[in-house]
Amino acid sequence: MDQILDEYFNEHKQQALKKLEKAVLEKQVDSRILPILHLININSDYFTTSSCAGRIIVLQLPEIGNKKQAVFLGRWHRPVCEDEVVSVLRLYDDGQIWLLAQPPIFHIGCKTLDAANLLMKTGIISGFKQSGIRSISGQIIVELQSTERMDIPLGYNGKQIIPNELINFFIETANRAIIRAQKKLDQLEENIKKIDDKTK
Amino acid sequence: MDQILDEYFNEHKQQALKKLEKAVLEKQVDSRILPILHLININSDYFTTSSCAGRIIVLQLPEIGNKKQAVFLGRWHRPVCEDEVVSVLRLYDDGQIWLLAQPPIFHIGCKTLDAANLLMKTGIISGFKQSGIRSISGQIIVELQSTERMDIPLGYNGKQIIPNELINFFIETANRAIIRAQKKLDQLEENIKKIDDKTK
Repeated sequence: MDQILDEYFNEHKQQALKKLEKAVLEKQVDSRILPILHLININSDYFTTSSCAGRIIVLQLPEIGNKKQAVFLGRWHRPVCEDEVVSVLRLYDDGQIWLLAQPPIFHIGCKTLDAANLLMKTGIISGFKQSGIRSISGQIIVELQSTERMDIPLGYNGKQIIPNELINFFIETANRAIIRAQKKLDQLEENIKKIDDKTK
Repeated sequence: MDQILDEYFNEHKQQALKKLEKAVLEKQVDSRILPILHLININSDYFTTSSCAGRIIVLQLPEIGNKKQAVFLGRWHRPVCEDEVVSVLRLYDDGQIWLLAQPPIFHIGCKTLDAANLLMKTGIISGFKQSGIRSISGQIIVELQSTERMDIPLGYNGKQIIPNELINFFIETANRAIIRAQKKLDQLEENIKKIDDKTK
Protein backbone atom coordinates (compact mmCIF):
# COMPACT_ATOMS: atom_id res chain seq x y z
CA MET A 1 0.00 0.00 0.00
CA ASP A 2 2.78 2.41 0.99
CA GLN A 3 4.59 1.66 -2.26
CA ILE A 4 1.46 2.44 -4.30
CA LEU A 5 1.07 5.76 -2.44
CA ASP A 6 4.75 6.56 -3.09
CA GLU A 7 4.35 5.87 -6.79
CA TYR A 8 1.19 7.99 -6.90
CA PHE A 9 3.04 10.84 -5.17
CA ASN A 10 6.11 10.55 -7.41
CA GLU A 11 3.98 10.52 -10.56
CA HIS A 12 2.23 13.72 -9.48
CA LYS A 13 5.57 15.27 -8.57
CA GLN A 14 7.01 14.54 -12.03
CA GLN A 15 3.94 16.13 -13.70
CA ALA A 16 4.16 19.19 -11.43
CA LEU A 17 7.90 19.64 -12.10
CA LYS A 18 7.32 19.49 -15.88
CA LYS A 19 4.56 22.07 -15.59
CA LEU A 20 6.81 24.31 -13.48
CA GLU A 21 9.69 23.97 -15.98
CA LYS A 22 7.38 25.06 -18.81
CA ALA A 23 6.05 28.01 -16.75
CA VAL A 24 9.61 29.13 -15.93
CA LEU A 25 10.61 29.00 -19.62
CA GLU A 26 7.53 31.10 -20.46
CA LYS A 27 8.54 33.56 -17.70
CA GLN A 28 5.24 32.99 -15.87
CA VAL A 29 6.92 32.47 -12.48
CA ASP A 30 8.21 35.42 -10.45
CA SER A 31 12.00 34.99 -10.22
CA ARG A 32 11.90 35.98 -6.53
CA ILE A 33 10.22 32.70 -5.54
CA LEU A 34 12.26 30.38 -7.80
CA PRO A 35 14.87 29.63 -5.07
CA ILE A 36 12.03 28.72 -2.65
CA LEU A 37 10.32 26.48 -5.22
CA HIS A 38 13.69 24.82 -5.86
CA LEU A 39 14.34 24.23 -2.14
CA ILE A 40 10.91 22.61 -1.77
CA ASN A 41 11.21 20.47 -4.90
CA ILE A 42 14.66 19.02 -4.07
CA ASN A 43 13.09 17.52 -0.93
CA SER A 44 11.66 14.06 -1.75
CA ASP A 45 8.67 14.71 0.58
CA TYR A 46 7.32 17.72 -1.36
CA PHE A 47 6.51 19.29 -4.70
CA THR A 48 5.12 22.73 -5.55
CA THR A 49 1.92 23.09 -7.58
CA SER A 50 0.72 26.71 -7.91
CA SER A 51 2.47 29.65 -6.31
CA CYS A 52 2.50 33.44 -6.40
CA ALA A 53 5.08 35.89 -5.01
CA GLY A 54 2.35 38.35 -4.04
CA ARG A 55 0.67 40.80 -6.39
CA ILE A 56 -1.32 43.98 -6.88
CA ILE A 57 -4.39 43.56 -9.08
CA VAL A 58 -7.30 45.58 -10.44
CA LEU A 59 -10.36 43.40 -10.80
CA GLN A 60 -13.80 43.95 -12.33
CA LEU A 61 -16.43 41.59 -10.90
CA PRO A 62 -20.23 41.29 -10.45
CA GLU A 63 -20.18 41.36 -6.61
CA ILE A 64 -17.94 40.84 -3.57
CA GLY A 65 -16.74 37.26 -3.13
CA ASN A 66 -17.76 36.30 -6.69
CA LYS A 67 -14.32 35.61 -8.13
CA LYS A 68 -15.52 33.23 -10.83
CA GLN A 69 -16.68 35.96 -13.16
CA ALA A 70 -13.86 38.37 -12.33
CA VAL A 71 -11.90 40.08 -15.11
CA PHE A 72 -8.31 41.17 -14.48
CA LEU A 73 -7.84 44.74 -15.71
CA GLY A 74 -4.30 44.96 -14.30
CA ARG A 75 -1.90 42.58 -12.56
CA TRP A 76 1.61 43.29 -11.19
CA HIS A 77 3.98 41.08 -9.16
CA ARG A 78 5.95 44.15 -7.96
CA PRO A 79 5.37 47.63 -6.55
CA VAL A 80 3.42 49.78 -9.05
CA CYS A 81 3.18 53.49 -9.84
CA GLU A 82 0.05 55.64 -9.93
CA ASP A 83 -0.05 56.01 -13.74
CA GLU A 84 -0.10 52.26 -14.30
CA VAL A 85 -3.13 51.78 -12.07
CA VAL A 86 -5.03 54.87 -13.21
CA SER A 87 -4.60 53.82 -16.85
CA VAL A 88 -6.28 50.42 -16.28
CA LEU A 89 -9.10 52.03 -14.26
CA ARG A 90 -10.19 53.58 -17.57
CA LEU A 91 -11.06 50.08 -18.83
CA TYR A 92 -13.70 49.64 -16.10
CA ASP A 93 -17.23 49.56 -17.57
CA ASP A 94 -19.51 47.21 -15.59
CA GLY A 95 -20.24 45.76 -12.12
CA GLN A 96 -17.81 46.49 -9.28
CA ILE A 97 -14.15 47.40 -9.46
CA TRP A 98 -11.62 46.43 -6.79
CA LEU A 99 -7.97 47.18 -6.09
CA LEU A 100 -6.37 44.22 -4.32
CA ALA A 101 -2.98 43.52 -2.80
CA GLN A 102 -2.53 39.80 -2.28
CA PRO A 103 0.17 38.16 -0.15
CA PRO A 104 2.57 35.45 -1.36
CA ILE A 105 0.95 32.02 -1.59
CA PHE A 106 2.34 28.52 -2.16
CA HIS A 107 0.52 25.22 -2.74
CA ILE A 108 2.63 22.17 -2.00
CA GLY A 109 1.93 18.46 -2.48
CA CYS A 110 3.21 16.44 0.51
CA LYS A 111 4.10 12.74 0.69
CA THR A 112 2.87 12.23 4.27
CA LEU A 113 0.80 14.00 6.91
CA ASP A 114 3.92 14.38 9.06
CA ALA A 115 5.67 16.15 6.19
CA ALA A 116 2.58 18.36 5.70
CA ASN A 117 2.53 19.22 9.41
CA LEU A 118 6.23 20.15 9.42
CA LEU A 119 5.80 22.40 6.37
CA MET A 120 2.68 24.09 7.77
CA LYS A 121 4.52 24.85 11.05
CA THR A 122 7.53 26.15 9.08
CA GLY A 123 5.17 28.48 7.21
CA ILE A 124 3.58 29.78 10.41
CA ILE A 125 6.89 30.55 12.16
CA SER A 126 8.01 32.35 8.96
CA GLY A 127 5.06 34.74 9.21
CA PHE A 128 2.81 32.83 6.79
CA LYS A 129 0.04 32.81 9.42
CA GLN A 130 -2.74 31.79 7.03
CA SER A 131 -1.12 28.41 6.38
CA GLY A 132 -3.10 25.16 6.52
CA ILE A 133 -3.70 21.74 5.01
CA ARG A 134 -6.20 22.26 2.21
CA SER A 135 -6.69 18.62 1.16
CA ILE A 136 -5.97 15.20 2.65
CA SER A 137 -8.10 12.94 0.45
CA GLY A 138 -6.20 11.84 -2.66
CA GLN A 139 -3.33 14.29 -2.57
CA ILE A 140 -2.15 16.01 0.60
CA ILE A 141 -1.90 19.73 -0.20
CA VAL A 142 -0.50 22.41 2.12
CA GLU A 143 -1.15 26.08 1.48
CA LEU A 144 1.32 28.64 2.83
CA GLN A 145 -0.08 32.16 2.80
CA SER A 146 1.05 35.41 4.36
CA THR A 147 -1.24 38.12 5.78
CA GLU A 148 -0.46 41.44 4.04
CA ARG A 149 -3.56 42.21 2.03
CA MET A 150 -5.79 44.98 0.80
CA ASP A 151 -9.27 44.51 -0.68
CA ILE A 152 -10.62 47.91 -1.71
CA PRO A 153 -13.78 48.59 -3.73
CA LEU A 154 -13.26 51.62 -5.99
CA GLY A 155 -16.65 51.72 -7.73
CA TYR A 156 -19.90 49.91 -8.51
CA ASN A 157 -22.54 49.76 -11.28
CA GLY A 158 -19.78 50.63 -13.75
CA LYS A 159 -19.07 53.95 -12.00
CA GLN A 160 -15.76 54.81 -10.27
CA ILE A 161 -16.53 56.31 -6.83
CA ILE A 162 -13.04 56.75 -5.39
CA PRO A 163 -11.39 59.58 -7.38
CA ASN A 164 -7.99 59.16 -9.02
CA GLU A 165 -6.48 61.74 -6.60
CA LEU A 166 -6.92 59.24 -3.74
CA ILE A 167 -5.66 56.17 -5.62
CA ASN A 168 -2.02 57.03 -4.89
CA PHE A 169 -2.53 56.63 -1.13
CA PHE A 170 -3.83 53.10 -1.73
CA ILE A 171 -1.00 52.30 -4.14
CA GLU A 172 1.62 53.43 -1.63
CA THR A 173 0.04 51.19 1.01
CA ALA A 174 -0.11 48.26 -1.46
CA ASN A 175 3.56 48.79 -2.36
CA ARG A 176 4.53 48.71 1.31
CA ALA A 177 2.55 45.45 1.66
CA ILE A 178 4.47 43.90 -1.26
CA ILE A 179 7.82 44.98 0.24
CA ARG A 180 6.89 43.67 3.71
CA ALA A 181 5.85 40.33 2.17
CA GLN A 182 9.21 40.10 0.36
CA LYS A 183 10.97 40.08 3.73
CA LYS A 184 8.79 37.19 4.84
CA LEU A 185 9.81 35.30 1.69
CA ASP A 186 13.45 35.66 2.84
CA GLN A 187 12.47 34.23 6.23
CA LEU A 188 10.54 31.35 4.62
CA GLU A 189 13.51 30.53 2.39
CA GLU A 190 15.82 30.32 5.41
CA ASN A 191 13.43 28.09 7.34
CA ILE A 192 12.78 25.72 4.41
CA LYS A 193 16.57 25.31 4.07
CA LYS A 194 16.54 24.03 7.67
CA ILE A 195 13.94 21.35 6.79
CA ASP A 196 16.15 20.22 3.89
CA ASP A 197 19.24 20.12 6.11
CA LYS A 198 17.42 17.99 8.71
CA THR A 199 15.98 15.51 6.21
CA LYS A 200 19.26 15.03 4.29
CA MET B 1 -3.98 4.33 22.46
CA ASP B 2 -7.30 5.12 20.75
CA GLN B 3 -8.98 5.23 24.13
CA ILE B 4 -6.42 7.74 25.44
CA LEU B 5 -6.96 9.93 22.35
CA ASP B 6 -10.75 9.72 22.84
CA GLU B 7 -10.40 10.78 26.48
CA TYR B 8 -8.09 13.63 25.47
CA PHE B 9 -10.63 14.77 22.85
CA ASN B 10 -13.59 14.49 25.23
CA GLU B 11 -11.78 16.43 27.94
CA HIS B 12 -11.05 19.28 25.50
CA LYS B 13 -14.65 19.17 24.28
CA GLN B 14 -16.00 19.54 27.82
CA GLN B 15 -13.72 22.54 28.45
CA ALA B 16 -14.74 24.15 25.15
CA LEU B 17 -18.47 23.65 25.85
CA LYS B 18 -18.13 25.25 29.28
CA LYS B 19 -16.30 28.22 27.75
CA LEU B 20 -19.01 28.55 25.09
CA GLU B 21 -21.79 28.39 27.70
CA LYS B 22 -20.12 31.23 29.62
CA ALA B 23 -19.66 33.31 26.45
CA VAL B 24 -23.34 32.79 25.51
CA LEU B 25 -24.47 33.90 28.98
CA GLU B 26 -22.29 37.01 28.65
CA LYS B 27 -23.83 37.65 25.20
CA GLN B 28 -20.41 37.45 23.53
CA VAL B 29 -21.62 35.07 20.80
CA ASP B 30 -23.62 36.34 17.81
CA SER B 31 -27.07 34.69 18.05
CA ARG B 32 -27.03 34.02 14.29
CA ILE B 33 -24.34 31.35 14.63
CA LEU B 34 -25.69 29.66 17.78
CA PRO B 35 -27.73 27.06 15.81
CA ILE B 36 -24.61 26.17 13.79
CA LEU B 37 -22.46 25.87 16.94
CA HIS B 38 -25.18 23.65 18.46
CA LEU B 39 -25.34 21.41 15.36
CA ILE B 40 -21.56 20.95 15.46
CA ASN B 41 -21.39 20.34 19.20
CA ILE B 42 -24.15 17.64 19.30
CA ASN B 43 -21.96 15.56 16.97
CA SER B 44 -19.58 13.41 19.04
CA ASP B 45 -16.80 13.92 16.44
CA TYR B 46 -16.60 17.72 16.87
CA PHE B 47 -16.54 20.71 19.17
CA THR B 48 -16.38 24.42 18.41
CA THR B 49 -13.61 26.58 19.88
CA SER B 50 -13.63 30.18 18.60
CA SER B 51 -16.11 31.49 16.04
CA CYS B 52 -17.33 34.76 14.55
CA ALA B 53 -20.45 35.45 12.46
CA GLY B 54 -18.56 38.01 10.37
CA ARG B 55 -17.90 41.61 11.37
CA ILE B 56 -17.06 45.14 10.36
CA ILE B 57 -14.17 46.68 12.31
CA VAL B 58 -12.16 49.87 12.50
CA LEU B 59 -8.60 49.13 13.52
CA GLN B 60 -5.63 51.33 14.43
CA LEU B 61 -2.28 49.54 13.91
CA PRO B 62 1.42 50.32 13.36
CA GLU B 63 1.62 48.76 9.85
CA ILE B 64 -0.13 46.33 7.47
CA GLY B 65 -0.10 42.71 8.63
CA ASN B 66 0.93 43.71 12.18
CA LYS B 67 -2.22 42.62 14.04
CA LYS B 68 -0.49 42.09 17.38
CA GLN B 69 -0.43 45.77 18.27
CA ALA B 70 -3.80 46.56 16.72
CA VAL B 71 -6.38 48.58 18.68
CA PHE B 72 -10.09 48.10 17.92
CA LEU B 73 -11.75 51.53 17.60
CA GLY B 74 -15.07 50.00 16.47
CA ARG B 75 -16.48 46.48 16.05
CA TRP B 76 -19.93 45.42 14.77
CA HIS B 77 -21.34 41.95 14.00
CA ARG B 78 -24.06 43.46 11.78
CA PRO B 79 -24.53 46.02 9.02
CA VAL B 80 -23.54 49.50 10.25
CA CYS B 81 -24.52 53.07 9.42
CA GLU B 82 -22.24 55.92 8.39
CA ASP B 83 -22.54 57.86 11.68
CA GLU B 84 -21.36 54.90 13.74
CA VAL B 85 -18.18 54.52 11.70
CA VAL B 86 -17.44 58.24 11.33
CA SER B 87 -17.77 58.72 15.10
CA VAL B 88 -15.07 56.11 15.87
CA LEU B 89 -12.77 57.52 13.16
CA ARG B 90 -12.45 60.58 15.44
CA LEU B 91 -10.61 58.39 17.98
CA TYR B 92 -7.78 57.71 15.51
CA ASP B 93 -4.51 59.36 16.61
CA ASP B 94 -1.48 57.25 15.60
CA GLY B 95 -0.07 54.82 13.01
CA GLN B 96 -2.42 53.48 10.32
CA ILE B 97 -6.19 53.18 10.38
CA TRP B 98 -8.09 50.46 8.53
CA LEU B 99 -11.73 49.65 7.85
CA LEU B 100 -12.18 45.88 7.58
CA ALA B 101 -15.07 43.59 6.72
CA GLN B 102 -14.29 40.05 7.81
CA PRO B 103 -16.18 36.92 6.76
CA PRO B 104 -17.68 34.36 9.16
CA ILE B 105 -15.08 32.03 10.67
CA PHE B 106 -15.33 28.85 12.75
CA HIS B 107 -12.62 26.84 14.51
CA ILE B 108 -13.60 23.27 15.25
CA GLY B 109 -11.81 20.52 17.17
CA CYS B 110 -12.17 17.15 15.39
CA LYS B 111 -11.83 13.63 16.83
CA THR B 112 -10.26 12.10 13.70
CA LEU B 113 -8.68 13.19 10.42
CA ASP B 114 -11.61 11.62 8.53
CA ALA B 115 -14.02 13.78 10.54
CA ALA B 116 -11.82 16.83 9.84
CA ASN B 117 -11.79 16.05 6.11
CA LEU B 118 -15.59 15.67 5.98
CA LEU B 119 -16.10 18.99 7.78
CA MET B 120 -13.58 20.83 5.58
CA LYS B 121 -15.32 19.56 2.44
CA THR B 122 -18.71 20.54 3.89
CA GLY B 123 -17.36 24.04 4.45
CA ILE B 124 -16.03 24.32 0.90
CA ILE B 125 -19.29 23.21 -0.76
CA SER B 126 -21.15 25.73 1.46
CA GLY B 127 -19.08 28.59 0.03
CA PHE B 128 -16.51 28.67 2.86
CA LYS B 129 -13.71 28.42 0.29
CA GLN B 130 -10.93 29.43 2.69
CA SER B 131 -11.43 26.29 4.79
CA GLY B 132 -8.53 24.09 5.85
CA ILE B 133 -6.99 21.99 8.61
CA ARG B 134 -4.97 24.38 10.77
CA SER B 135 -3.46 21.86 13.18
CA ILE B 136 -2.94 18.08 13.30
CA SER B 137 -0.40 17.74 16.10
CA GLY B 138 -2.04 17.49 19.51
CA GLN B 139 -5.53 18.66 18.61
CA ILE B 140 -6.96 18.44 15.11
CA ILE B 141 -8.42 21.87 14.30
CA VAL B 142 -10.42 22.74 11.19
CA GLU B 143 -11.01 26.36 10.19
CA LEU B 144 -14.05 27.20 8.08
CA GLN B 145 -13.84 30.65 6.55
CA SER B 146 -15.82 32.44 3.87
CA THR B 147 -14.40 34.88 1.29
CA GLU B 148 -16.31 38.19 1.56
CA ARG B 149 -13.78 40.65 2.85
CA MET B 150 -12.61 44.23 2.65
CA ASP B 151 -9.28 45.54 3.95
CA ILE B 152 -9.14 49.29 3.38
CA PRO B 153 -6.49 51.69 4.70
CA LEU B 154 -8.10 55.06 5.53
CA GLY B 155 -5.07 56.94 6.84
CA TYR B 156 -1.46 56.77 8.06
CA ASN B 157 0.90 58.60 10.44
CA GLY B 158 -2.17 59.49 12.51
CA LYS B 159 -3.77 61.40 9.60
CA GLN B 160 -7.04 60.36 7.93
CA ILE B 161 -6.55 60.44 4.12
CA ILE B 162 -9.91 59.14 2.88
CA PRO B 163 -12.48 61.86 3.63
CA ASN B 164 -15.70 61.11 5.53
CA GLU B 165 -17.76 61.82 2.36
CA LEU B 166 -16.36 58.65 0.78
CA ILE B 167 -16.73 56.41 3.84
CA ASN B 168 -20.38 55.70 3.09
CA PHE B 169 -19.51 53.96 -0.19
CA PHE B 170 -17.21 51.60 1.72
CA ILE B 171 -19.80 51.01 4.43
CA GLU B 172 -22.47 50.11 1.86
CA THR B 173 -20.08 47.61 0.30
CA ALA B 174 -19.18 46.19 3.74
CA ASN B 175 -22.88 45.85 4.61
CA ARG B 176 -23.52 43.94 1.37
CA ALA B 177 -20.60 41.65 2.28
CA ILE B 178 -22.13 40.94 5.69
CA ILE B 179 -25.53 40.18 4.11
CA ARG B 180 -24.00 37.92 1.45
CA ALA B 181 -22.07 36.03 4.15
CA GLN B 182 -25.31 35.54 6.14
CA LYS B 183 -26.73 33.55 3.21
CA LYS B 184 -23.68 31.32 3.25
CA LEU B 185 -24.28 30.70 6.96
CA ASP B 186 -27.75 29.38 6.03
CA GLN B 187 -26.14 27.06 3.48
CA LEU B 188 -23.52 25.88 5.99
CA GLU B 189 -26.22 25.17 8.57
CA GLU B 190 -28.14 23.01 6.08
CA ASN B 191 -25.04 21.06 5.10
CA ILE B 192 -23.88 20.44 8.67
CA LYS B 193 -27.36 19.05 9.43
CA LYS B 194 -26.68 16.46 6.70
CA ILE B 195 -23.44 15.37 8.43
CA ASP B 196 -25.36 14.92 11.68
CA ASP B 197 -28.10 12.92 9.93
CA LYS B 198 -25.51 10.62 8.33
CA THR B 199 -23.55 9.98 11.52
CA LYS B 200 -26.61 9.33 13.69
